[in-house]
Parts: sequence; structure tokens; C-alpha cells
Amino acid sequence: MEAELKGLLSELHSLKDSMPDPSQKDLIDKIQSRVEHLSAAEKKANAQRSKIKDMSAEVVDSNPYSRLMALQRMGIVDNYERIREFSVAIVGIGGVGSVAAEMLTRCGIGRLLLYDYDKVELANMNRLFFRPDQAGMTKTDAAVQTLSGINPDVVLESYTLNITTVQGFETFMSSLTNKSFRPDKERSGVDLVLSCVDNYEARMVVNQACNELNQTWMESGVSENAVSGHIQLLVPGETACFACAPPLVVASGVDERTLKREGVCAASLPTTMGIVAGLLVQNTLKYLLKFGTVTPYLGYNALKDYFPTMEMKPNPQCSNAACLERQKEYMLVKPARDAAAAAKAKIEAEESVEPECLHDDNEWNISVVGDDDDVQGSDATSGAITEGLVHELPSADAFQQPPAVKETTTTPADDLDELRKQLEALNAD
Amino acid sequence: MEAELKGLLSELHSLKDSMPDPSQKDLIDKIQSRVEHLSAAEKKANAQRSKIKDMSAEVVDSNPYSRLMALQRMGIVDNYERIREFSVAIVGIGGVGSVAAEMLTRCGIGRLLLYDYDKVELANMNRLFFRPDQAGMTKTDAAVQTLSGINPDVVLESYTLNITTVQGFETFMSSLTNKSFRPDKERSGVDLVLSCVDNYEARMVVNQACNELNQTWMESGVSENAVSGHIQLLVPGETACFACAPPLVVASGVDERTLKREGVCAASLPTTMGIVAGLLVQNTLKYLLKFGTVTPYLGYNALKDYFPTMEMKPNPQCSNAACLERQKEYMLVKPARDAAAAAKAKIEAEESVEPECLHDDNEWNISVVGDDDDVQGSDATSGAITEGLVHELPSADAFQQPPAVKETTTTPADDLDELRKQLEALNAD
Repeated sequence: MEAELKGLLSELHSLKDSMPDPSQKDLIDKIQSRVEHLSAAEKKANAQRSKIKDMSAEVVDSNPYSRLMALQRMGIVDNYERIREFSVAIVGIGGVGSVAAEMLTRCGIGRLLLYDYDKVELANMNRLFFRPDQAGMTKTDAAVQTLSGINPDVVLESYTLNITTVQGFETFMSSLTNKSFRPDKERSGVDLVLSCVDNYEARMVVNQACNELNQTWMESGVSENAVSGHIQLLVPGETACFACAPPLVVASGVDERTLKREGVCAASLPTTMGIVAGLLVQNTLKYLLKFGTVTPYLGYNALKDYFPTMEMKPNPQCSNAACLERQKEYMLVKPARDAAAAAKAKIEAEESVEPECLHDDNEWNISVVGDDDDVQGSDATSGAITEGLVHELPSADAFQQPPAVKETTTTPADDLDELRKQLEALNAD
Repeated sequence: MEAELKGLLSELHSLKDSMPDPSQKDLIDKIQSRVEHLSAAEKKANAQRSKIKDMSAEVVDSNPYSRLMALQRMGIVDNYERIREFSVAIVGIGGVGSVAAEMLTRCGIGRLLLYDYDKVELANMNRLFFRPDQAGMTKTDAAVQTLSGINPDVVLESYTLNITTVQGFETFMSSLTNKSFRPDKERSGVDLVLSCVDNYEARMVVNQACNELNQTWMESGVSENAVSGHIQLLVPGETACFACAPPLVVASGVDERTLKREGVCAASLPTTMGIVAGLLVQNTLKYLLKFGTVTPYLGYNALKDYFPTMEMKPNPQCSNAACLERQKEYMLVKPARDAAAAAKAKIEAEESVEPECLHDDNEWNISVVGDDDDVQGSDATSGAITEGLVHELPSADAFQQPPAVKETTTTPADDLDELRKQLEALNAD
């Protein structure tokens, strides 16, 4: 549109030159100033912030990263700017995937790979992200349009394809293995794959790709009645893969598109999808930037505000051959890994004996209130408060070290049969 | 801009008429077609969907309400369209309030009242909702711009003011009592007030207004280190008001603006703020549309994925006079209320003896799997599944009826001292 307006101005210029009558020249002047006015308005509407070379912690209104870099000063993250090195692939840019993409974009992730084959419809407007004026665009194009406007520092790659087709799967695999963004990276070219798809088949395809590439990924889902959801971390060989733990209720084989044609659709809510996207990206940030506890599985039941967690070990009888390969590899390196983890834990335990100086750069004067022991890493700050900042209410932090009460049902099931029995028991009662 | 382009076209028209030379006429034709092209592009970019008179459940791509109306078919909500009768006031259109406003707008809420005095800055871009091109606009103007584009069916009222000033408080109060949207409504003109402010003073002002008006409201907050938050339901006289339970750590009296000037800011994350906004609006939907359990208090600790709940009774020694008035009123009507609730519970218990036909209109063939007793209302559907729909993973629903395990720490503290002792015990360990 900007180019159009420029062309218009130059045409008006040559028209004016060919004009003998001064009153006509006046009219053209008027038209010209109107076009200039339009140009300025257009420029302002398309005003994107310029790219930012280095993330700064400077507290000025014009710095889009000040509130993120403050995570370092607060002792939550050691090196926030590392986020620029990471690539995250998001499969499915629907109610969960689009919001996850926006959150990562606003956090300044290095590179986002987006996969979807669908188009934006007005029927999607009950979830966040897409706008009515984008109806008819592909979800990938609409996402790139919005995300590039929000943060031009993020490298966006979009793939308008269906990963469940042969051709789509090939492109999916080659995009995941492309290391041009960080040539020194080991294994695949991405740090994490987020599955935000809405069907079983696509999840099995993501599972296959990640098992083959030995790629850590996170799965997400929202129930068809819109009031529950979950996220899950899948580390090939180390945790259950998606094929290790088959769905409790198996697909009846009816194509989901048939349902749609019959005038029936699943319910959805911007709340549930936004919460699941938030939990998914929060887990992603914890995984990438190494803070807090990365959750292996977190459920969300909106009707009762119930948030179950659990752990799922891989199934030695898994039907996925690549999963069995990864399990074998994991068992080979496990003794060395466990020894390293034990050594690290020992060092950390020794370090925590002297909690006097947690951070050299303690400009917030953060100190721990009424908490003489059990002080470790970033958690130490959340109970504390600095001069001038206010805990308005008994905050969630007040509950973070409950001594006896166990809030979630963590089930380190040793094998799948045990887990399934537990699930069935819960379901049957 | 559309008007500008129209003016341009008419000016070009009169210029052409005054032109003797045919080659000049040709040039003007060219300019004219260029302006028409611009007009069309402009119109497309501003394409808003037209208003919709009645919400329909029809499953077509062009229906923005199909996925919401499906909540009725799924047995979650009795009458979704009632949402159009409700007015919600959101105080503070920042990281939480703006997302809450967008969620309610996409859900098709009847009327939204928005309050903020601040301007959009690039430093806000690490949270959802506002765009870089809106930097410099007031948050209220920017919100109305975005929200009216998303859903023209919602009645938007925006107030660019600071509720903590005398003038601001007066306007705040009169806007809450204005009943023009639903003249038959009892008490105030709104159904719920959502507090999404970031400071103690503003919360105390919302508390004062709601106590005076006997107005139910919900409070929300995110910690200054960005990794925890909470939502809380406040019913004057029935639950603790914001002054009943003073913050554990009291404000040191330093103005938050001083901190900002000193080059220090609180951290924030789009994930935590999006999750808190999602939990807040989910609780709002449950409260307005009467489904699930409305949460009295829900905390969120992102580092450990811990979600504590609790209940807070009003403080008979509360310093807020209006709160004491409401407490008195509540105690007067309590016996009648309790009797009515008991009678309702008895009727429901009798009804649940015959669970064979939960819904006359059972087009989804919803039935309960492996669950012979304890079937009630909307929850009954969440364990079931219909032909063609798939539980991809053991969903959160599978955990919704745990027999012995209590997931959250519900603390029906009988008085505030007891509660405070518990909080201190948790904090001290």
C-alpha cells in the first residue's frame, strides 16, 4: 500500500507539470496533500519497531525486553538472553498453538517453525489470536502476519502442509533437521517440538518424527467438552512415548471430518485453550532456560480446578520401533547419567550450606524471610520481598513449601500396567 | 482513511471534468483506478464481521459462536446465550486485564466496562494483547480498537481514569451503578467486577466500591518475580473482603513509581499473566453461567506447578465499615439461605437416584463408562465419550473423581487468626 501511495504522488507530480491552468494546479496541490496525509497515516499504522541487536535490561518505556531481562535480577533465570539461541517448532496453529506461538514471540524466542494446513474461519473467533479480517487466510500466513508485527527479532518459518501426508511428513522431517540457524547444534536443528494438534493421527506422526530424531517434545490437548486439558513432556527413551501409553478410550475409526459434516462440532473456550497454551509455554521456558521444575505431565480440570501431575515410564513392549531403539540407548547411558546427577546434587547440597550470598549482584536486597534452611537456587527469592514492593495478598508463594500436604498426585509408576490399573481405578470409582 | 479516499476520488472526478486534453484525462483515469484499488484494499483490511442478532449453534465455518453454543450440547452449560445479558467491569487493562477482556469479548459477553489511565508502551510487549503500533495510545483506546474488531456484538464502555483519585472514584461508582444496559437488574448495573490492577492502593479502592455497592468481585494478581499469581472471589459479607485479610508483608510505603525511576522494574511473563487471566475468566464464566465449582481462591506457582486453594471467612474486626455492614446483613439472611440450600441439595440428591436419562436431547449418545453411581449434572458427561471422538491421552477427566486423594489444600478456616497461623506455618517451614 505504501508503494501504491508513492506511485500516486509521482503521477500527480507529472500531471501538475503538464497543467497550464493555475486553478487546476491548486486542485492538484490539494489532492497531493491529501495523498501525503494518507501516506503518513499508513506509515504510522504499519509502524513496526525496529529490530533490536542485543537484549537490554534498561528500564525505559521503549524497551520491549526490560520485564523479561528483570527475571535475571529477580534471580529466576541465570541468562535470559540465551532464549535467542533456541528454535521451537509448533505443530498445529489452532487455539493452543497460535497462543503458544504468540507467547514465545513476545518472549523473544530465537526461531519459530510453524506448521498447519488449515484456514482461518470465523468459527475460530471464540479462541484467542486470529482476527475476523484474517478469515480465509491460511493459519500459517495469518500467524506470520501477526507475529512479525509483534516482534521482528524472531525468525519465523512457516510450513503450510499436513504432516500426516507422505509429502508433508518429508518436509516436516527435513525442516526439523535443518541446522542453518545454529550450525553447531547437536542432533536436530530445533530445541523443542510442541504438538498443538487436535487429533490422534497427527500426534502419532509427531511421535514418530521425534522418536526417529531423538527429539524431546511436548504434547498438549484440550478435551472435546472444552473444560479440561493437559500438557506432557516426552523425552525419547526416557519417558513414555505417545505410542507407549495408548489412549484409554480407543478411536472408533470415524473420521473427525465426518462429524463436522453432520453438523456437530466439539466445544472450545478461549480460557481453557489459553491456560493450556500458557502451561505449555511456561514448561517450555523452564526447560529451555533451566529454572523451576519441568513438569512431566500436568492435567487441568476446569470444573473443579484440579491439576493432576504424574510421570510415565517408557513401555518396554511399545509398538513403536524407534521408541524401543531410544529405550535401549537410554539404558546404556543411564548409569553414567545417574552418577553425574548424583555428583551434581552433592555439590549443590554442599553449596547450599552457605546461603548468605545467593547473588553477587543483589541490587534488590533480596533476602529470605523466616526461612533458615532448605534454601536452593532460584526458589529462594520467591519467598522474599524487596523494599517498596508489596505482597498484596497471601500470595501463592506462601504455599510453595508445604511440609506435609502433597498437593498433586505424582505417580512414578514403574510400568505401564501399574499406571493403567491406577487410571482405571480412578475412573471406575 | 476510508473517508479520505472517498474525498480524493470526488476531487479527481471534478479535476477530470475541467480537463480539455485527452492525454491528461487518461492520466487522471490511471490515478483514479489506483485510488479505487487502494480503497478496496483498505476496505478489506478493515473488514469487520457484521453484528449477529441471535447466537446460533449451527456448525458452519462462518458462525463465530458454534464452538461456544456446543457447550450446551456437551452438557456443560444450560443456556450459553445468557452470556449476552451480563455486564463485566475490568479495572486495569494491563497484562492480565487486557487478556481477560479479550477472552470475554470472544465469548460474546453482553457488555464490558474497561478502566485504565495508562498508555501502551513497547515495554508492555512481553505480555499478550497490545501491539507495537499501539504504543502511545491509551490502553483503553487501544483495547476498544482491538476488541471491537474482534467482536462487534459486545457493548464496550471505556473509562480513561485513575480510580484512586476523587474524581476517578466518583466516575467509577456512577458507571457501576448505571443500569441502562439492563434496567430490570437488581442492585448495581454490573454482574461482576474483575480487579486486574498491579498495586495495593487500587485494590483497596475496588474493595471499597464493591463493599459499598454490595457487589461481588474477583481479584487477581501476579508476583513481582513473574512466576506466581492468584485469583480470588470476594462476596461482600460472605467471604473475606480485601481489607479483612491484610497482606502478610505490608507495603513499605515507597511509591512504585519511584522504583521505576530508579531503573528497576518488576519482571513479567506472557505465560503467567495469560494463565492468571485464563483462570480468572474461567471462574467468571462458571460464576455467570452456573457450571462447575466457582473457586474461592486459586493460587498458581509456576516453578513447581502448584495450585493451592482456600476459603477465607470475613473478619469480624475488619477495618472497613462497609464490610461490617455487609457482614451484618449476611448474618441476618444466613439461616434462610442455608435452609434453601439444604432443600435444593435434598431435591438434587433425590433426582440423582435416577441417572438413566440425563438429557432429553442426547444427540451425542453420551453415556457414562464404567461409572455406576455418583452421576450428577454436567460432570456426568466429562467421563464419557461419543462415537468418533477420541481421548488421545489419559485426559485430566480420568482423574476427576479421585476417591481418597485430596489434590488441593482447601482450608475452611473459621476465623482469620487461624488462617494467618496456617499461612505463617507454611511460610516458616
